[in-house]
Amino acid sequence: MTSPVGLHRVLEPVGVLPQAAWRLDPAGPVGVDEVRIRVERLNLDAASFRQLSEKHGGDGAAVRAEVLEIISSRGKMHNPVTGSGGMLIGVVDEVGPSSPLRLKPGDRVATLVSLTLTPLVVTDALAGWDGLGEQVPCAGYAVLFARSVVAVLPDDLDARLSLAVLDVCGAPALTARVVSGYVSPSVAVLGGGGKSGALALAAARRAGAGRTVGVVPVAAERDRLLAAGLASEVALADARDPVALAAAVSGALGGPADVTVVCVDVPGCEHGAILATADGGTVIFFSMATSFAAAALGAEGLAADVTMLVGNGYVPGHAELALDLVRSEPGVRALFQARVAAD
Amino acid sequence: MTSPVGLHRVLEPVGVLPQAAWRLDPAGPVGVDEVRIRVERLNLDAASFRQLSEKHGGDGAAVRAEVLEIISSRGKMHNPVTGSGGMLIGVVDEVGPSSPLRLKPGDRVATLVSLTLTPLVVTDALAGWDGLGEQVPCAGYAVLFARSVVAVLPDDLDARLSLAVLDVCGAPALTARVVSGYVSPSVAVLGGGGKSGALALAAARRAGAGRTVGVVPVAAERDRLLAAGLASEVALADARDPVALAAAVSGALGGPADVTVVCVDVPGCEHGAILATADGGTVIFFSMATSFAAAALGAEGLAADVTMLVGNGYVPGHAELALDLVRSEPGVRALFQARVAAD
Repeated sequence: MTSPVGLHRVLEPVGVLPQAAWRLDPAGPVGVDEVRIRVERLNLDAASFRQLSEKHGGDGAAVRAEVLEIISSRGKMHNPVTGSGGMLIGVVDEVGPSSPLRLKPGDRVATLVSLTLTPLVVTDALAGWDGLGEQVPCAGYAVLFARSVVAVLPDDLDARLSLAVLDVCGAPALTARVVSGYVSPSVAVLGGGGKSGALALAAARRAGAGRTVGVVPVAAERDRLLAAGLASEVALADARDPVALAAAVSGALGGPADVTVVCVDVPGCEHGAILATADGGTVIFFSMATSFAAAALGAEGLAADVTMLVGNGYVPGHAELALDLVRSEPGVRALFQARVAAD
Repeated sequence: MTSPVGLHRVLEPVGVLPQAAWRLDPAGPVGVDEVRIRVERLNLDAASFRQLSEKHGGDGAAVRAEVLEIISSRGKMHNPVTGSGGMLIGVVDEVGPSSPLRLKPGDRVATLVSLTLTPLVVTDALAGWDGLGEQVPCAGYAVLFARSVVAVLPDDLDARLSLAVLDVCGAPALTARVVSGYVSPSVAVLGGGGKSGALALAAARRAGAGRTVGVVPVAAERDRLLAAGLASEVALADARDPVALAAAVSGALGGPADVTVVCVDVPGCEHGAILATADGGTVIFFSMATSFAAAALGAEGLAADVTMLVGNGYVPGHAELALDLVRSEPGVRALFQARVAAD
């Protein structure tokens, strides 16, 4: 019997879970409770793509070569600098007889577990990708374990749109859960114009938020978010500047936020998020660029009685909630379509 | 007027909060809302001391030299590798006329904000320290801001004991708050034989925990924790081995824990903590060695519906709660006295 969490695919170091492993074994036969996917497209995590692109000064060929090198040496797309991966889309190729995932060959699916723990082989050298965007056309194979999370893609939405939505579907689900624990809380979403940020704003409103503010770094994003109509207010501020950020949030909400959601994929937003949040409030960190120590010591140093959550990408029902928001909220859909077209 | 969070002491980069700064200005006159402390002793954060000691192979003179170099170049004791600091004990030397901290010259105090944001000058080259323990005899000066947190040391407890307790007083306070949100939850404390772990176990029991287990790595710690009588069960496991850890916790509690508290100051405990926790449960990360990405992606990869908290070192009333536990729980007091004597 193979391990439901994939321990049998770990090559080194032995005994750790696949996400913690340096190298996985993506080859070999499909285990009795595994599923093999024929890959069509990878969606790199935003923090990972940004790091690679900046490292290579925007040289797409060099970015592509490094992604290939990571996958071939690690047996998974696990950026060693950011620690993050992304997700993939593909077609079910083979299903082990004991798999609990209820898939059948031919199903078109997106994985909702990170690429950092998904065994992966690339067979086309990523020849169809220019290295300039997060969405990577790709031929190859990937393996799902018994305890993986996967969504069959809906027929009524474009596959690239669905992939972009599912990639960040933990954010709206956890935001909704936290918001519904308060009575009409004020909510600030840092990076409200991005994919996870727009979904978080829509989810917060639906979950009973009072005043909301989306914080964005540049005027063009402000205009797009205003047009989308997802927040009571839109404020322009650099989330890495704690004093300016807190002033912008307080100005928009009439005081610090009860719930602050961090969806900005750059380092250094911890202190601003804490300073912008009211005592008794909650900060949800969704950015993979979050520093644990900066958050913990920042709150202590500011004597801030705030609850700080590590943004867990898994909440039951998260895929359905996020897809429903895109279907039913024209503002969310428009933002996503523009983002997908730009990638 | 000076900034209540100390922005005026930041030398570089300008505009960030003191904790995020590379370098602070510890010199200059005491601001109207500041307090100057004559330092007697530093208590280095456990993760920081361990990193320095391992880097120098236990060579105390080399550790001392590096601590001096960090303080003189950064104007604070902020380990650049671990990102952590510690705290200090001293006597109030000068109080600005607008300070809200209600201190007077001569008060013996411990700072409850991290050394990573406390302007500090050392004047004795740490001549009284052998570099072999976390407690550092020290002559020098430190500055508190208006929004700092500080405790006047109690007369009925040894100062070194009080300092060790106050250093980790956020852990029992947050553990108590989380435990009281469940009905008779089962609680696992990883590193239950350490200072924060022992306090967390005692706080969990007092806050209404059902079965509790303290997990420790070696037999000597197991025996000490059993003798202290702070947990229903004591289990021996390496918290970095997820499968072994989850089995040990389930064996002791009869199933996964409702609340798991991570007090182990080594990297790589995130996956084990998540795997040892029940769906609907909460993991509290107090270790500064916690990786944000490993926690976030680990929970997602395991499809684990757990709430993950960044251990905020500040909870109102935390100092009083921790000191009261040491006074009233002989098991806690015995463990602390042994730890302090060994340092």
